[in-house]
Amino acid sequence: MTRNTALRETMPVPDTIAGRSIVLVGLMGAGKTSIGRRLAARLGLPFRDADQEIELAAGCTIPEVFARYGEQAFRDGERRVIRRLLAGDPMVIAYGGGAFMDPRTRETTRDEAVSIWLRCTLPTLVRRVAGRDNRPLLMGRDREDTLRQLMDVRYPIYAEADVIVDCGDEPPDHTTSTVMQALSDWKPARRLHVMLASTSYDVVIGDNLLARAGALLAPKLPQKRAVVVTDRTVAGLHLPALLDGLAQTGFSTSSVTIKSGEASKNLDTYMDVVDQLLEARVERRTAVIALGGGIVGDLAGFAAATTLRGLPFVQIPTTLLSQVDSSVGGKTGVNTRHGKNLVGAFHQPRMVLADTGTLATLPPRELGAGYAEIVKAGLIGDAAFFAWCEQHGPGVIAGDREAQAEAIRRACAFKAQVVGDDEHEEKPNDGRALLNLGHTFGHALEAEYGYDGGLLHGEGVAVGLGLAFRLSARLGLCPQADAERVVAHVAATGLPAELGMLNRRFSAETLIAHMRRDKKMRDGALHFVLARGIGQAFTSSDVPHEAVLDLLRDEGCAP
Amino acid sequence: MTRNTALRETMPVPDTIAGRSIVLVGLMGAGKTSIGRRLAARLGLPFRDADQEIELAAGCTIPEVFARYGEQAFRDGERRVIRRLLAGDPMVIAYGGGAFMDPRTRETTRDEAVSIWLRCTLPTLVRRVAGRDNRPLLMGRDREDTLRQLMDVRYPIYAEADVIVDCGDEPPDHTTSTVMQALSDWKPARRLHVMLASTSYDVVIGDNLLARAGALLAPKLPQKRAVVVTDRTVAGLHLPALLDGLAQTGFSTSSVTIKSGEASKNLDTYMDVVDQLLEARVERRTAVIALGGGIVGDLAGFAAATTLRGLPFVQIPTTLLSQVDSSVGGKTGVNTRHGKNLVGAFHQPRMVLADTGTLATLPPRELGAGYAEIVKAGLIGDAAFFAWCEQHGPGVIAGDREAQAEAIRRACAFKAQVVGDDEHEEKPNDGRALLNLGHTFGHALEAEYGYDGGLLHGEGVAVGLGLAFRLSARLGLCPQADAERVVAHVAATGLPAELGMLNRRFSAETLIAHMRRDKKMRDGALHFVLARGIGQAFTSSDVPHEAVLDLLRDEGCAP
Repeated sequence: MTRNTALRETMPVPDTIAGRSIVLVGLMGAGKTSIGRRLAARLGLPFRDADQEIELAAGCTIPEVFARYGEQAFRDGERRVIRRLLAGDPMVIAYGGGAFMDPRTRETTRDEAVSIWLRCTLPTLVRRVAGRDNRPLLMGRDREDTLRQLMDVRYPIYAEADVIVDCGDEPPDHTTSTVMQALSDWKPARRLHVMLASTSYDVVIGDNLLARAGALLAPKLPQKRAVVVTDRTVAGLHLPALLDGLAQTGFSTSSVTIKSGEASKNLDTYMDVVDQLLEARVERRTAVIALGGGIVGDLAGFAAATTLRGLPFVQIPTTLLSQVDSSVGGKTGVNTRHGKNLVGAFHQPRMVLADTGTLATLPPRELGAGYAEIVKAGLIGDAAFFAWCEQHGPGVIAGDREAQAEAIRRACAFKAQVVGDDEHEEKPNDGRALLNLGHTFGHALEAEYGYDGGLLHGEGVAVGLGLAFRLSARLGLCPQADAERVVAHVAATGLPAELGMLNRRFSAETLIAHMRRDKKMRDGALHFVLARGIGQAFTSSDVPHEAVLDLLRDEGCAP
Repeated sequence: MTRNTALRETMPVPDTIAGRSIVLVGLMGAGKTSIGRRLAARLGLPFRDADQEIELAAGCTIPEVFARYGEQAFRDGERRVIRRLLAGDPMVIAYGGGAFMDPRTRETTRDEAVSIWLRCTLPTLVRRVAGRDNRPLLMGRDREDTLRQLMDVRYPIYAEADVIVDCGDEPPDHTTSTVMQALSDWKPARRLHVMLASTSYDVVIGDNLLARAGALLAPKLPQKRAVVVTDRTVAGLHLPALLDGLAQTGFSTSSVTIKSGEASKNLDTYMDVVDQLLEARVERRTAVIALGGGIVGDLAGFAAATTLRGLPFVQIPTTLLSQVDSSVGGKTGVNTRHGKNLVGAFHQPRMVLADTGTLATLPPRELGAGYAEIVKAGLIGDAAFFAWCEQHGPGVIAGDREAQAEAIRRACAFKAQVVGDDEHEEKPNDGRALLNLGHTFGHALEAEYGYDGGLLHGEGVAVGLGLAFRLSARLGLCPQADAERVVAHVAATGLPAELGMLNRRFSAETLIAHMRRDKKMRDGALHFVLARGIGQAFTSSDVPHEAVLDLLRDEGCAP
């Protein structure tokens, strides 16, 4: 939605911010009033200077308020005035330099407005404030030193603004155009609020979130200190961007890097990560941030759950699979020689950042494998979302970031709803068990390939989705047409959709034997998630052996 | 409260069961009606036969109810009739043989009555039921086989009764006297209900609980299967009794035994315990039972918290310290090379069994060290309890089990209240931090001795309690008389009460240096729990260095 915005051109308020006020923050001399007036005029909005509003309310000048009542009284009044302004119709508001430092004012601003930081270098500011004498904090001190100290303290907080515009010595109209362009380019990240009995948190989904991580996380973490846990592959691709993004709002950080791959997901690596966290002298309030796929998330989450009996935890999943799967649910853990995920804890994150930008570095097969879990969500319980997938799935696979963000949001929303009803996986049926749609067949195929044998989990699930629907149709539960719609869509996104699309032939009896050994098969019966149609899945524990056998034979398996 | 109960003598209802009905359970032929009538007569209570009440309510005989409506309808009616009987004034009730098998009836019975199982051997029962033909479950089948099958199914459930009386071929009046003696001897265990935001559970305190573990735990665990984690010392003393007690109500059990001592409380032993739990093929509903002191409890609790993302957990603390300290609070964890308890989880138990019988095997110094934590509870917030301690403390130390049980109950009740307000130790002051009364000095002394250097934690705390009160008095916060009362009571129980009672001399500056290094000393200031009097503790973070130094010099430390 970029526009060709010439100098001084007026434009309507961008749709993305409609209904919200626009707030300008920055140090004294950054041009908040000057740019704010011009911006308001061009957008056809009223303009207010928060400092002037305070003077009106106080009946005296700000230096007088400071002199008579002290800074605290001024800040209290400022907070009240800003809350009143933000509660009204949309306008452009220039904040006083210290207003955004107040955590409650920042919170109100996040909720009600779009904030823009006019960022200036020290020399620019020193030039601009020369000759002014009505700024209480500058009186009688050396300007440059004071400004430098203010920058040190305030810039990490200003950096929490939604939009950052660098301002130099350009004329105000030029800067105003730059601000308008930035506003026009700005797309708020999608937010999904996950509500659980024990806690709640946001999944933030959008492009370029790593660079904004500090701004996004600061309001949700008790301390601006974090240890990032990642793996070697992801560290090379995304760690610098994340550390920069965190540093921007003043986070002090360190990182722990593990070897890439499932082999790292064990108790030895866990102990090593815990040891490095303690070596880094984490405190109770220090956050652990997982940057990577599901393996990093599960391992780092378990370390966070147990170091000092539980550290604040953030998930930054960098694969499509982990963005839609492991980022919601709170499961953490590692594998042991006895099986997968046998040791771990439920530990909910404070926030999940799903940056669609990280998907650009993902191998196409991994992207497809993650997409299978997205389609699954629609098939289990959201027919409208499956229809959306039929239309937009190819875009998701092709790298359309808007489509990706929407797909992730809807799949996470679905999973969050299922998990919210069954936080600790205590329901034997339905509840979280529904999330296993396609997994009985999928796990059997994975077992057949061997776990590092060239079939991705999501690819097994992709084939499994079609098989689960064809089995449902064969049992007379679901229209055949729905099953064929599933297979057709999966195939259209380039995923294997039928056994015949895999590079092997299978024995029906062998696959069934794998199913019976699946750890989710209590008492050796064949448990499946079946469907009465698209979006109508249910769990079943009495599927006749013969029906499965016949299906697999018809799908081309050896008898 | 034993009574000399001669044959046929009547007696008042024992105080311990006043207000409750007495319920007789057992198989057909056990003598429930015959003994019940006699018992009621001797106690001066009415008698009811539950089966007759059902027949009255149904207007036909029990075989007719079975024939017309089926067993399910009979059981539903039986449950309703029993609930009605138990809701009325105290009486003696003979249950039908199957009534106690119903979990809801057992629950009502536990809440409203004292249950007695008349336990008979198979030959006795076979002889007694010969010639009867009004028992629906026996009709037309081989009596001995049927009785044996019923015993297999029902005896593990009957074993949940409060009192068990073995009955042979004695005349009914003799058996009645035995039952009356058993009732008179019966002492219900003390129960403390711990309420937390996330869960609630009972701490059961009394003598001989290991033998009754199966009966006590069965209602609170999802599966009659448990793995006991213990150490070599405790295994030799108490494991067989516990396994027998569990087997009595049909628990299948296995055990994991670790080396005794603090050195086992590490991540390697944790991994080993987890591996053994998985090797034993625990399921989500299998319980982990910690049998031992604080080390076993912390380690087994952490393994339970994390195996399969959380198994049901039971604490059976066998030291006085762990009975009053680690059994309430939900903290689990292990030490690492970086410090104590740095890795772990909050994991609340389903039940805590504090068996005072296990204290008989405890070395006297360990008993004293545990007692220091009991006194601490009174000093922090319960002046009446401290007064109780002054009176009964010597009995606790001397092995008076009633005094021990009362002391444990009151100390646990106090801790439960503190923990309930601050479950995850998030309050910087007061809250759980109050539990550190005496610990600033205590930890400094422990550090001076070295952690295996011959001063028990509780002994350090004992000295620390007096010092904390004397420091409070020196600061003008607390009457000097209160401080001297503390020192006098601690000394009276044989614990070291002053620095002069320890076998070393200390340097005041060295002790203060240890205090500053304590991990609970944020920012290097001297944090103490002080008191305004007995039972009025509060946290303080601005104690002047000089005051501590002067106190320690006056207590005989080198300058």
